[in-house]
Amino acid sequence: MIFSQPITKLIDAFRRLPGIGPKTAQRLAFFVLSMKKEEVHEIASALIEAKNKIRQCSRCFNLTEQEICSICRDPRREAALLCVVQEARDIYVIEKTGQYKGFYFVLHGALSPLEGIGPGELKIPALLQRISSEGIKEVIMATNPNAEGDATAFYIAEAARPLGVKVMRIGFGLPVGGDLEYADELTMSRALEARREIL
Amino acid sequence: MIFSQPITKLIDAFRRLPGIGPKTAQRLAFFVLSMKKEEVHEIASALIEAKNKIRQCSRCFNLTEQEICSICRDPRREAALLCVVQEARDIYVIEKTGQYKGFYFVLHGALSPLEGIGPGELKIPALLQRISSEGIKEVIMATNPNAEGDATAFYIAEAARPLGVKVMRIGFGLPVGGDLEYADELTMSRALEARREIL
Repeated sequence: MIFSQPITKLIDAFRRLPGIGPKTAQRLAFFVLSMKKEEVHEIASALIEAKNKIRQCSRCFNLTEQEICSICRDPRREAALLCVVQEARDIYVIEKTGQYKGFYFVLHGALSPLEGIGPGELKIPALLQRISSEGIKEVIMATNPNAEGDATAFYIAEAARPLGVKVMRIGFGLPVGGDLEYADELTMSRALEARREIL
Repeated sequence: MIFSQPITKLIDAFRRLPGIGPKTAQRLAFFVLSMKKEEVHEIASALIEAKNKIRQCSRCFNLTEQEICSICRDPRREAALLCVVQEARDIYVIEKTGQYKGFYFVLHGALSPLEGIGPGELKIPALLQRISSEGIKEVIMATNPNAEGDATAFYIAEAARPLGVKVMRIGFGLPVGGDLEYADELTMSRALEARREIL
C-alpha cells in the first residue's frame, strides 16, 4: 500500500528534520492529520514566522529578531571576555549556568576539511577582526568536545595568539552526576589529564 | 536567557507533536532556522496541504484524498472479511505483510472509560451496521495488544456475535527475531497460552 500523496509529502517533510527516521516521520504525519485544522495552521505559521523574523546578530551571529542581539546590547557584560561557540543554541547552555558574564561569538559550524568547511566558511576572519579591534583579553573556546571542535579551537588559538589575547579551552572530564563505570576511554583519559590537586 | 519570541513559539509548536520533548523541540527549531527559506515553506505547506486534502473514507474511515479510499475501491478484495484497527496507520502495517486480502475498518481509538471514550466515540455503531448489512463472515480484531485494545476487541466481539459473524483476535506471542531473554512476563505468558503442537 502506498499512502496518498499529501501524506507521503508530509512524511518526507518530517524526514528532513534531524533525528527523524521513517517510522517517527510516519507517526508524526498521522498525528498531524488527527489534529485540529487551526492547530496545524498554528504550527505552519510558527515555522514561517520564525524563519522570516529571525536573523543573525551582526555583531556575534547569535540568532535574534533585531540587528544586534540582546546579549550584545547588555551593558553589564564584561567586554574583554569572549566565548566562541559552534551554534547559537550553545549560548543557551552556557547562559543557563549563570556563571559567564562576557560576550559570545557564534561560528555556525566547525572546521571540517572533509566537508570542505574552512576558516572562511566559519566567520573566523570576522572573529579575528573583532578580537584585534575590541581589546578582548580572553577568548574561551567552547566548541564541541570532538575532533572538529578541537581542531577549530586549536586553529583559532594559533591565529589569535599573535593578537596578544589569552585563548582558553573549556575543561574536559567526567560529567557531574555520572557513573565512572559508564565513562568511555576518551572521557576518562581527558579526566585523568585534567586532574587537580585536592587542597 | 530567554529565546526571542518567534523561536519560543516554534519550540512550542514542535512540543505539541508526540514524543518530542523540550530538548528535541529546541534542536528541531534551531535546525529549521538553519534551513533555506524555501525548504521551511515546503514543510509548512506540506502540513497545510495534507491537513486540507486528507479526510476519512466514508466507508472504512481510513485516511484518503477521496470520498472512498483505494482499498475500499479494490474489487479483488474479499468482501466477507473485515479487519478492525485502531488507527489508519495500522492498515499500513498489515498491508505490508501482503497476507491480508479483506477490507478494513478504522475505529480511530480504543475504548477507555477513564478518558471517557465509549462505543459512540469510536464508530462502533457504524461498524456493527456494516457487519450486519454487508454479509461479513469474519471480523479480525487487530486492535493494540494492551488493556484498551483488548477491551475494545472483547466489547466488539460481544456486540457482533448476535449478528452471526465469527470474531477473531490477532495472535499473541513472541515477536519473530526476538530473544527469549528479553521477553516481558506478559508476552511470555501469552506465548505459552498460544502454544501449538509441532507436527
